[in-house]
Amino acid sequence: MVDNSRVQRRDAYTVETLLAVTVRVFNERGYDGTSMEDLSRAAGISKSSIYHHVRGKEELLRLAVGRALDGLFGILDEPAATTGRAVDRLEHVVRRTTEVLAAELPYVTLLLRVRGNTATEQWALQQRRAYDHRVAELLAEAVRDGDLRSDIEPRLATRLLYGMINSLIEWYRPGPDEKSVQHIADAVTLLAFGGLRAP
Amino acid sequence: MVDNSRVQRRDAYTVETLLAVTVRVFNERGYDGTSMEDLSRAAGISKSSIYHHVRGKEELLRLAVGRALDGLFGILDEPAATTGRAVDRLEHVVRRTTEVLAAELPYVTLLLRVRGNTATEQWALQQRRAYDHRVAELLAEAVRDGDLRSDIEPRLATRLLYGMINSLIEWYRPGPDEKSVQHIADAVTLLAFGGLRAP
Repeated sequence: MVDNSRVQRRDAYTVETLLAVTVRVFNERGYDGTSMEDLSRAAGISKSSIYHHVRGKEELLRLAVGRALDGLFGILDEPAATTGRAVDRLEHVVRRTTEVLAAELPYVTLLLRVRGNTATEQWALQQRRAYDHRVAELLAEAVRDGDLRSDIEPRLATRLLYGMINSLIEWYRPGPDEKSVQHIADAVTLLAFGGLRAP
Repeated sequence: MVDNSRVQRRDAYTVETLLAVTVRVFNERGYDGTSMEDLSRAAGISKSSIYHHVRGKEELLRLAVGRALDGLFGILDEPAATTGRAVDRLEHVVRRTTEVLAAELPYVTLLLRVRGNTATEQWALQQRRAYDHRVAELLAEAVRDGDLRSDIEPRLATRLLYGMINSLIEWYRPGPDEKSVQHIADAVTLLAFGGLRAP
C-alpha cells in the first residue's frame, strides 16, 4: 500500500527543513527516545525519504548540534570578539551568545541536553568544553588586565555566567517582538558585569 | 522461585533510603522512563517490598520533590530571610539556596527536571512557580528600597539569578571538601550582587 500523502511531501523537504522537524522531536522525546519511525511520522514522509537526505538519526543529530556550535563558535571570530580589551571582547561574547541562543533556541537546547551515549554526542560535549575553555581564557585575561574582579576563579565565574545565559532554554519562548531579545541581552550584560546592586 | 537476596534486603530499607535509590534512577532514566521493575532492580528488593513502603512510583516522586521543596521553602522562613532590609534578606536567600542545592543535589535536580505529565509533576511545577514568585517579590522590594538596580525588570532578574544558581545541577559534583560549597556560595553571591567587573 502506497501512502500518497507521504510520497507527495518527500520533495517538499530539504535537509534544513527536515532538521527543524527532527530537532523538535529530539527535544520533546530525547535523542535516545526517538526512533526513525518517530521522525518519519512527525515529518509526514517515509523513512526511505529521510534516508534520501541523511544516513540516519545520528547524522541528523550531528547536523543539528553542528548548527548550534557554528553559531556559538562564529561569535568568537567576530571582529568585536577578536580585537580590543579582553573585558570588551567578553561583553560582546556574552551579549551575542544570548542573541544566538534566542535565535537558534531549539538547536542550542538540543546541544545543551546532549548526554554522551554516542560518538556524535561525545564530540558535541568535547566541542562545548572547548568553547567554555575559550570563554574562560578570555575572562581570565580580563582579570589579569584588572578590569574584572579577581576574587572569583575564572573557571567558576565562567560556569556561573553561562549558567545564567543558558537558562534561557528553560524559560525563553520567542514572540513576535524582536526587541524582547535585545531587552534580555541588555539584562544579561548588565547583571553579569554590574550585578544586581544599584550603581 | 524466591529471590532470597531480595527478601533479605527488604527490611534494610526505610522510605528515606529507598528514596535515595529512587531519585538516582529517576535522574538517570527520567521519571517517565522509569518502571517499578527498574526501581526494584536498582534497590535489589521485590516490587511488593517497595509497595510495602509506598503506593507506587508517583508517591516516590512526590516524596522526592517534596524533600527538595521543603529545603527551598524552609529558607524563606529562616530569621535572616524574614527580618531586615529586603536586599539583605535576598542575599541570605541566594546564599542558602546555593547551599541547599549542593546539599540536596539529586532531589533538586529531579525537581528542576519535572515535566508536568502527571498530577504530582503539575503540583511540583506550581510549587516552583510559587517559590520563584516569592523571590521575585523580595527582589522587587529591594529595588523599591533603592538598594538594587531598577533597570532590570524584577521577574527577568529573578529568572537570570536562578538560572545561575540552578546551573549547579549541571556541573557541581559533591566532594569531600565541605569548604568547596562555601566557596561556590561566595562566588554566586559576589557575582549576583556585585557583577564580574572589578570593584
